[in-house]
Amino acid sequence: MKLAIDAMGGDHAPTEIVMGAVEAVSEINDLHITLVGDEKQITPLLKSSKNIDVIHTEDVITGEDEPVRAVRRKKNASLVLTAKEVKEGRVDACISAGNTGALMSAGLFVVGRIPGIDRPALSPTLPTIDGKGFLLLDVGANVDAKPQHLLQYAIMGSIYTENVRSIHNPTVGLLNVGTEDGKGSELTKKAFKLLKDAPINFVGNVEARDLLDGVADVVVTDGFSGNIALKTIEGTAGALFSILKETMMSSMKTKFGAILLKNDLKGLKGKLDYSEYGGAGLFGLAAPVIKAHGSSNRRAIVSAIKQAKYMVDHDVTNTIKTTVESMELEKE
Amino acid sequence: MKLAIDAMGGDHAPTEIVMGAVEAVSEINDLHITLVGDEKQITPLLKSSKNIDVIHTEDVITGEDEPVRAVRRKKNASLVLTAKEVKEGRVDACISAGNTGALMSAGLFVVGRIPGIDRPALSPTLPTIDGKGFLLLDVGANVDAKPQHLLQYAIMGSIYTENVRSIHNPTVGLLNVGTEDGKGSELTKKAFKLLKDAPINFVGNVEARDLLDGVADVVVTDGFSGNIALKTIEGTAGALFSILKETMMSSMKTKFGAILLKNDLKGLKGKLDYSEYGGAGLFGLAAPVIKAHGSSNRRAIVSAIKQAKYMVDHDVTNTIKTTVESMELEKE
Repeated sequence: MKLAIDAMGGDHAPTEIVMGAVEAVSEINDLHITLVGDEKQITPLLKSSKNIDVIHTEDVITGEDEPVRAVRRKKNASLVLTAKEVKEGRVDACISAGNTGALMSAGLFVVGRIPGIDRPALSPTLPTIDGKGFLLLDVGANVDAKPQHLLQYAIMGSIYTENVRSIHNPTVGLLNVGTEDGKGSELTKKAFKLLKDAPINFVGNVEARDLLDGVADVVVTDGFSGNIALKTIEGTAGALFSILKETMMSSMKTKFGAILLKNDLKGLKGKLDYSEYGGAGLFGLAAPVIKAHGSSNRRAIVSAIKQAKYMVDHDVTNTIKTTVESMELEKE
Repeated sequence: MKLAIDAMGGDHAPTEIVMGAVEAVSEINDLHITLVGDEKQITPLLKSSKNIDVIHTEDVITGEDEPVRAVRRKKNASLVLTAKEVKEGRVDACISAGNTGALMSAGLFVVGRIPGIDRPALSPTLPTIDGKGFLLLDVGANVDAKPQHLLQYAIMGSIYTENVRSIHNPTVGLLNVGTEDGKGSELTKKAFKLLKDAPINFVGNVEARDLLDGVADVVVTDGFSGNIALKTIEGTAGALFSILKETMMSSMKTKFGAILLKNDLKGLKGKLDYSEYGGAGLFGLAAPVIKAHGSSNRRAIVSAIKQAKYMVDHDVTNTIKTTVESMELEKE
């Protein structure tokens, strides 16, 4: 399998990106990686060049760049050239930990959509208490979603979860303000009807308070609400950990208690660690495009690479394509 | 001040509701409470009837009742009669810990709106790390909000926060998918413009991950997203506490560590305890109507009573009314 990676995107680029690539090629057979970025920075990090090559460019898109404009103007930016590799068929999939909006734009304008999918969805797998995790989509690729978009997300999410996460007949829930049928906004009421009739294992409306309990394997929502849910989970977990830390450092007694709990609490944090879950796929594009977390370390990059490999090995893109074709989904 | 309370609403009704009322009248001068519900259950809980009277009814609206239909058909339900007390001027404010949707319906159909306010907003105060808390509105009274509704929420939230929470010139943020101007959905883009020109201390877009850090004193959003944010906070905190508990019970060592931390961790839970924050006001109604948390204990009821008292003492409803009149807000 061939993979292109934006070596310059992310908080710890290029070091952690390159080191993740190096680890991945040593762990995974028949993997070839093309790193895109500044070879003066990349090459010194490579012990050998076995199964890794470099496309040199000095242009980068930063977190401050306006996404659409940046992708259109910076035609030689590492992120854009990475997307071009997959578009032009030289690699099977691509990954970036850089500017999320820019990667979505590059996905749309450079890679292109699967026919029949109106909008790609940014789709991270999030942790649950039982360790199984769930797929949430969309978390912000498309903030003004229509009912048929949510139907398309449900189909793409089901195919991904069945093939890549190996969960048979995955359950699909619709994020809503209550669990009863008929609840919600104009959007969710219409989407509910479409989902009920779709060839998926639809379990109805699910509430945000039950997400981390693993209420469904796939949860679909519009990009605005999904973004709110995702960032509220991050923010609440972060706030609780910071209060917990403060509590533990407040006296000699609590410090001693904290020492006794230290290793087990690390396990707790590990349970919620995004780096084990790979990146967020941009489902609906004509090739696998994966957004790794901005703060990715090398392990997170390895996870994202494995995720890309599963997507290619199980031909997720083509499965989505043929399923959508056979369904003749309602057009916008 | 006179107050009507639905004695039959909530998970711990009538006992905790009645005991909260008893505590409140002993703590607060010049407070008179009318309890509405089954006197056979209520009277035995009252040691004295000083400053408390009872309106007897055996009808109740349960959590399973469809809200609008229940309010229309069960005209003698405790929740409906409670709302009627405030509508007909026999009390200054009312409280229920019962069916949220039914209280909103009773608010709209029995109590009525302030002229110029198109939609009431359900508005809880949520905890922040620094203990200051913030007001989030709307969390579900109106799931398909328009830009001018968000403007009205911002005005009502500012007035409440300034008068009841005594925060001078409170900051107002718009919940959004990014902090930059111009971000977001059609709704938030339009609302941003209205908020920028409003006589409030608007600080721009705020992200869900910063809510518990106290990014703004008042955060406005549509009822769908607000409901998702609120329930995601609840769900994530609940999930973390349950994993934390499990971690602490996993071995002798961790159990000993947990004992050392026990009291301080109680403080942590207390920081996040809704019962200190009163209930969620239904802002925009012609009189103060407060939704106490469904699982309210007597302390939560006392907090909600104090909140109602502040709203009456500071004439929040009339302040909203005159402010809205003077602004001649755009009509729907």
